[in-house]
Amino acid sequence: MIEIRPLEGIPEVRPGDDLAALIGDAVERVGGLEPGDVLVVSQKVVSKTEGRLEQTRDRMAVILREARAVRRRRGDFVIAETEHGFVCASAGVDRSNTPGDDWVVLLPRDPDASAAALRHGLAARFGSAPGVIVTDSFGRAWRQGTTDVAIGLAGMRPLLDLRGEKDSRGRPLEATVIAVADELAGAAELVMGKARGVPAALIRGYAAPEGEGSARELVMPPERDLFP
Amino acid sequence: MIEIRPLEGIPEVRPGDDLAALIGDAVERVGGLEPGDVLVVSQKVVSKTEGRLEQTRDRMAVILREARAVRRRRGDFVIAETEHGFVCASAGVDRSNTPGDDWVVLLPRDPDASAAALRHGLAARFGSAPGVIVTDSFGRAWRQGTTDVAIGLAGMRPLLDLRGEKDSRGRPLEATVIAVADELAGAAELVMGKARGVPAALIRGYAAPEGEGSARELVMPPERDLFP
Repeated sequence: MIEIRPLEGIPEVRPGDDLAALIGDAVERVGGLEPGDVLVVSQKVVSKTEGRLEQTRDRMAVILREARAVRRRRGDFVIAETEHGFVCASAGVDRSNTPGDDWVVLLPRDPDASAAALRHGLAARFGSAPGVIVTDSFGRAWRQGTTDVAIGLAGMRPLLDLRGEKDSRGRPLEATVIAVADELAGAAELVMGKARGVPAALIRGYAAPEGEGSARELVMPPERDLFP
Repeated sequence: MIEIRPLEGIPEVRPGDDLAALIGDAVERVGGLEPGDVLVVSQKVVSKTEGRLEQTRDRMAVILREARAVRRRRGDFVIAETEHGFVCASAGVDRSNTPGDDWVVLLPRDPDASAAALRHGLAARFGSAPGVIVTDSFGRAWRQGTTDVAIGLAGMRPLLDLRGEKDSRGRPLEATVIAVADELAGAAELVMGKARGVPAALIRGYAAPEGEGSARELVMPPERDLFP
């Protein structure tokens, strides 16, 4: 059985705040860490503590600057490829939950490093290093609504590769690489929620693929991208 | 807290099997249903019990017949739009976990109706009607790996609409429609797994959006589809 706990009571964060300490306090309130736990944390609080905030009257200029490429544009709606390789609306430049009307929050520069820093901070405090996933809400081609996906991670691999495994009749499995980090991110969103102000969750009971991975493994390489 | 339980011990199913009874037995083994539970079940067992199996030496012909439109094709790899409106590889025509080498499994004709039938069957047995989601593993544009998504549902709505809600500073929320049915589907996949042969899961502790929805609400309407 998998359990997903919201990590409540984390205050509004500001640049320079010690996010590992604030999340650690919330983890302590739900009883601490167990081996194999996965911590999921919203990009927004990571970006804010890292000072990835900007005051601007021209959000579109910031979006176009943060974008490595614009994939589609319809008026103010831009689907862009970020410097990390992620394809998402507005290159991840967000106006909600900012310090004020003319502020935007940018994606972390290196979300894997952000995840690793949290992992190490929590390991130092609890003696057990969780997998860590930094998430953001992305739209999808062909489907309505956003789902949370992994944009950074540490202490686990993002993909579960079943190639070579067989079905119950001995035939090779199709659809054999599963983006478990994205499924964990979406699962955690169910207890977090933008409006509820819960920026993190703890997932227990899932044996994440072992190793030191990167969320960049989730980016489709250009040669396989049929929707450039 | 959300809990996700695998529903184990469901045998290999055949056309005509009473899936609600088989799943009901598995639900009983984990202690029965509670109000608000969401049952997630893999498309494969739904399709098989509904007889959506076909013997063929030409899978591509079946794929092209099941497709309403081919969106992209590279050799044997076809991204197709199904009759339901879903965009996925091979129009959902699958070769793994079939009765034999020259068999394929098709998507259910009406996955919402499949979900509703399961919901009613379980309600009759347990006196409590769960939300039901029928899932399949879909690839995504721009991202590696599959995630499980909802292709049918009953007893809930697939989208959580936060439009009109405010962030902690009173500004309207961005990315305000969340595809919670897809997040629930992906969360359940974490305990199901193709190789493990667990075709269903029970999710407890999530207050799904109320109402009678359809998985077709998750399909991006053509006028908003920027990746035709």
